Parts: sequence; structure tokens; C-alpha cells
Amino acid sequence: MPGYSEPVDGFVVDPERLRGWTDALIRCCGTPSDIAADVAELLLASDLRGIASHGTARLPQYLKLIEAGIVDPRARPTKEGGKPALARFNANNGWGHHSGRVATDDAIERARQTGAAISVLRNANHYGIAGWYAMRVARQGLIGLSLTNTSPIVAPTRSRISLLGTNPIAFAAPAGRFGMLVLDMATSTVPRGRIEVAARRAEPILPGWAIAPDGSPATTSQAALEGSLQPLGGKEETGGYKGYGLALMVEALTGILADAAFGPNIIGLFSTEAPSNLGQFFMALDPAALDSGAGFERRLEQLLEELTSAPLIPEAPGPVLFPGQPEAERAEEQAREGITVDREHYDSLVELGQRYGIAFPVARPVGSSR
Amino acid sequence: MPGYSEPVDGFVVDPERLRGWTDALIRCCGTPSDIAADVAELLLASDLRGIASHGTARLPQYLKLIEAGIVDPRARPTKEGGKPALARFNANNGWGHHSGRVATDDAIERARQTGAAISVLRNANHYGIAGWYAMRVARQGLIGLSLTNTSPIVAPTRSRISLLGTNPIAFAAPAGRFGMLVLDMATSTVPRGRIEVAARRAEPILPGWAIAPDGSPATTSQAALEGSLQPLGGKEETGGYKGYGLALMVEALTGILADAAFGPNIIGLFSTEAPSNLGQFFMALDPAALDSGAGFERRLEQLLEELTSAPLIPEAPGPVLFPGQPEAERAEEQAREGITVDREHYDSLVELGQRYGIAFPVARPVGSSR
Repeated sequence: MPGYSEPVDGFVVDPERLRGWTDALIRCCGTPSDIAADVAELLLASDLRGIASHGTARLPQYLKLIEAGIVDPRARPTKEGGKPALARFNANNGWGHHSGRVATDDAIERARQTGAAISVLRNANHYGIAGWYAMRVARQGLIGLSLTNTSPIVAPTRSRISLLGTNPIAFAAPAGRFGMLVLDMATSTVPRGRIEVAARRAEPILPGWAIAPDGSPATTSQAALEGSLQPLGGKEETGGYKGYGLALMVEALTGILADAAFGPNIIGLFSTEAPSNLGQFFMALDPAALDSGAGFERRLEQLLEELTSAPLIPEAPGPVLFPGQPEAERAEEQAREGITVDREHYDSLVELGQRYGIAFPVARPVGSSR
Repeated sequence: MPGYSEPVDGFVVDPERLRGWTDALIRCCGTPSDIAADVAELLLASDLRGIASHGTARLPQYLKLIEAGIVDPRARPTKEGGKPALARFNANNGWGHHSGRVATDDAIERARQTGAAISVLRNANHYGIAGWYAMRVARQGLIGLSLTNTSPIVAPTRSRISLLGTNPIAFAAPAGRFGMLVLDMATSTVPRGRIEVAARRAEPILPGWAIAPDGSPATTSQAALEGSLQPLGGKEETGGYKGYGLALMVEALTGILADAAFGPNIIGLFSTEAPSNLGQFFMALDPAALDSGAGFERRLEQLLEELTSAPLIPEAPGPVLFPGQPEAERAEEQAREGITVDREHYDSLVELGQRYGIAFPVARPVGSSR
């Protein structure tokens, strides 16, 4: 249920061609091929699921960081010790998507032995959609959790200034015929991208989304962009301190636990000032440690059945959904029909292709026949 | 930041006398003394922190369940296996406070070996404030997490009926001179108790708190009490599907993972129809597995320093707080000055004391001098 809609003016591109191009582009800037494959996989998964803000649209920013020497495209994560169920890795300031994948796989492997296992990462970079790592765990039949801190754009309850990130919580679990339950949420009411979309479309800013620089509720997208996002729940009276608490919980389990940067001390994620030094947290839990057979999955299936067949409120735009359902449906559709990118996104990738001498694949305008 | 204020008409009782009376009352109905001590400790901790809804005010309901043969006051939890970092206990339908304490201590002990460890419980009962278990972990210098499912009084986004509980998330971590960071939150916008308070005080129901039985937003406390609570975030447009997702995540990690009752199938927590068979989740993480010295605590202290000294929004009723701060301050004050209980609460305990032949301790009216 992300706040993005189908772009009206854009292009449709074949997913496998987009993946191949992305992979080639990333290798071109000095990234070893196995690392490039991880990055391309994550960016494509994000585009397929309709989370354009975390997919190939970020390539120009990622490559700028590499060109500026801020991110090391060759770096590999190294294990810094810990215990069987809690280990730390140093991402060594490499691609966040690769270090996140390695830390996740290590947690899965240990969880199969111990029942549950955590990897934390420091010196990490932007790792794309938090949900991908949790989904990787769930595809193995385990329960996955992925958390990251991010640069401060959220104002804690009562604060006039931004001191915490949108610090997402991603959770995934195998769900039988429903596929996977995938919760992937910022702990702010809306992501910053939603405000940017509202600005472009001259849409209103709803109460609880953001505050203006003077700390009053933001009523225009301009004020919201200059101010701070509000934590999930919005104002204090509507439970905003809970979103603030969740963001702080994520910060404690990522930056604080992993000994990375934290809170107001994290520089802008795409700033070329210095490395981000993010902290990240990946957990895998193996239900097979408790249940023989597929008991967990059967029970979750039964619950999702009950939820999705519930009677509806009068203004419901459709049936009760389970977390991850719209994104999974979108991914299936786009895998078949091609990935839709808006004009701005398309133009930036074409330009990137020209600059690196790797021509962007042929795409057809939205609405044209194949 | 709970939605409860100082009662204007009530009594002040000495904490140690209230504990002694509670303990005697619980032992009186067949509870072994070590189990009674756990229950009394939790109920007192709740009263001291100002969470009256989860403290001694629940004693009449707990004792009714025991008298009806629904809860077994003598039952002790038994370990049902698992692996070093993920074990399951059967609470055997005993006092929830005792089985939760045992499961927590087992997780702490294993976490010291493996770095992190989880206990899940099934056949469990109402366990009081979720935060107590997380705090018990944090007092040992570890990071604690405690989750429970509860009976369905929350309507998922778009649903007209209640299908999930207020499924709380409690998280605690040691925080140096700040004591402890303690997040203890229902995943609904407000707890049901807040609506009951609004009804008693003829206060308005704010948008995002509840829906009426027909699925429209509840505007009166009457409609809210007959309808369903809304998940954190309120309506779909203000991020309510995130609160729904969090409630579902808690359900997956408690009822579903522990093989207990779940979702719409949980009977009312204080119903004498049948045992509740709740599912609960307790996790301990040991930062010492990664850090030598008190690195985690020092960093968290620094972050809380930055948060609590932030410049304020215009209408701020006070400084930026950290989760658990108001409750800790209240506990300190009430440990010193006595615990304030409202008249209804007081009367019910006096009556209980008469019924069991254990006189309620002398209390002085609020506002009278000592």
C-alpha cells in the first residue's frame, strides 16, 4: 500500500533487459560481478514491486557516490565476531545491497543451527528496500526481520527539528497459498517521497504527515519539504509518540547496537561529504525449531484467509489486504507486462547510459501497443 | 505518555502494604508463594508506573477466572524443546505473570551464551504490562523485547469488524544515566481503556481512534465502545495500514509461531468461557557479545541526550521525552508518596479483601495530609 501511483507519462521496459543493463552499468564503475548481481537483483525487485523510489531511479545517486570516492565499489563485508546468535559485520563502506545480502545469508545459516540468529552491520550504505532482506529469509521458510537507520528527516514528538531517520521495519514470513506476508514500513507516517509526489501533483498535505520549519503542522508541500516528517501516528494526541518510539527502537538495534553512526549524526544518505556509516540489523527465525511440518505456514494461511475475507467499512476502496499483497501483485504484473518508469526516471537512466557508453535498452512509451 | 491522568477522587496507599496484601490475596486462592510473588511484583510495578489498567485493578477479574476454574493458579510452565536461541514453553494455563517471568529468565540465560535468545509461550494467560518483561531483561544489561497477542478488538484497515488484538510491542534497553529506554505500546492508536476514560469524562473521540459498528469513523465514545479500535496511524490515508501490519507481525510471532490461539479465535481475555491460550514472545539480546565495556549504553545515553534537549514545537506541553520516562518518573514519585488509586479501583479491592478475609490496608483520601 505505498503512496505511489502509475505514472501517466513514461516508458515500459523489459525487466530482464533492465537487469542486464543495470548489472553492466554497475560493473562498469569497478564493481566485481558477484556484487553487481546483488545490486541489480535488489534494484529490479524494487522496481518490479512498484517501489520506484528505491530501484534503478537511485542509480545516478549511487554512481555519483562511487565517482566521488565516497562508496568503495570493491569492498566486501568482513565478520567481526560475536556469538552464534548475534554476530557483527563490517560492511567496509561497500555497496549496501551486497553487504546486506551477505549478512542475511549468514543469519539464515546460523538460524538453522540455533533456531534464531542476528547479524548487525556497521559502516554500511543505503541498502535499497528493507523488505528484500526479510523476503530472502522467508523464501527459505524462515521468518525474517530487517532494520536500518537512515539520515535524520523525522522530528520526534515535541521536537521542532529532525533527529531520527524514517528507520524502516521490514518483516516477512512464509504464508502458504498467500505467498509471503511482507511488512515493509517507514516508521514515519509517510516517506519523504510521498511529499515530493504531492508537491509535483499539487496535492494537499494531510494532518500528521509533516511539520513546517517553525514546528507548526505543515499544510503545504513546500513547508513540509523544508520542515520535518512526523512519526507514524502523527501528532502526540493521535499516538505519534509511538512512531517516535518505534524509530528509536530501530535506532537502538542498528546504529547504537552495531556501533555505527546514529540519530542526528548521520549525514545525508546521498551526500558526497563523507561515508554514511549506517547501522543495519537482520534476523532469521526458524519455525522448524518448534514445529515439525509446515505448522507455522498453515496457521498463518488460516489467519490471512480470515483477514482478507472480512466485511468492509463503507468507503473501502477494495478488500482487506495483507501486508505485501499489492506489491506482490504489481511485481507479477510487471514481470509479465514490463516495468513502467516515469519520464524523469527514464531520462536519467538514458543519460547515465550515454555517459558510461552502455546504451539504455529500447523502451516503449506508456500506452503504446507492443 | 499513557492516556491516563491523576484521579481526582481516590485514595493513596503505601506500595509495600499494597504488595503484601496482593501477595496474601493471591496465595489465598491456591497460588504457591513463589508464583504469587511474581504476580504481585508485576501488578505493583504497573500501579507504580501509573498504568492502573494493568495493575491491582485487575485482581477481581483474575480471581474470578481462578474461581471459575478457567485459570490454574498452581500451574507451572514446562519447556517443550526448541534450539539454543529459540525455545518454546507451555504455560499450562497458569498465571501469565509467572510463566512470562520464567520464559524471560530462560531467554536471558541463553542469550548470555549465544548472544541472543527467544522464548515463546503457548497456553498462556494475560501477563500484565508487556514492558515489565523487557525491563527485566534491560536491568541485566541486555536488550529486551516482549510481545503478546490479545483478544480481537481492533479492526484491520478496511475491515468493519475486529479481527486482531491491541497486540503490544515492548522494548527496553539500558541507557546509562537515563536509566532505561522502555517502549511499551499497543499497536492500536489508543488502548480501549482510553475510550472508557473518554466515556466517563464525556471527552471527544479523536479521528483515528475507533470506528462505529457500521464501519464509519466513531465520533462518540458510545459508538467507539460498540465498534472497533483502529490500528496505529488511524485511517488508511494517515498510515493506519502500518499499525495493522505491526499488529499482524506481533500475531505471527506470538499466536502463530507458538501454536497458540490467534486473531479472531481468541476469546475475551477475562471471559470465563474457556482458557485464553495466548501466545507470547520474549527476546533477550546481549550487546556484550559485540562490544567490550559499556559501549552500547554510552551510545544510547548520547542519543537520548540529543533527543531530550531538542528545540520544541510551539504547542509542546514540555520537553521531548524518551519512551518510558514519564512512567519511570511516576514510579519514583509513587514509591515515595504512595500509590494513588481511584475510588472505583479502591472500592473493588476493599470488597475483594472482605470476601477473602484479608483486610485491605489503610489508605488515606487523595488530598488529605499524612
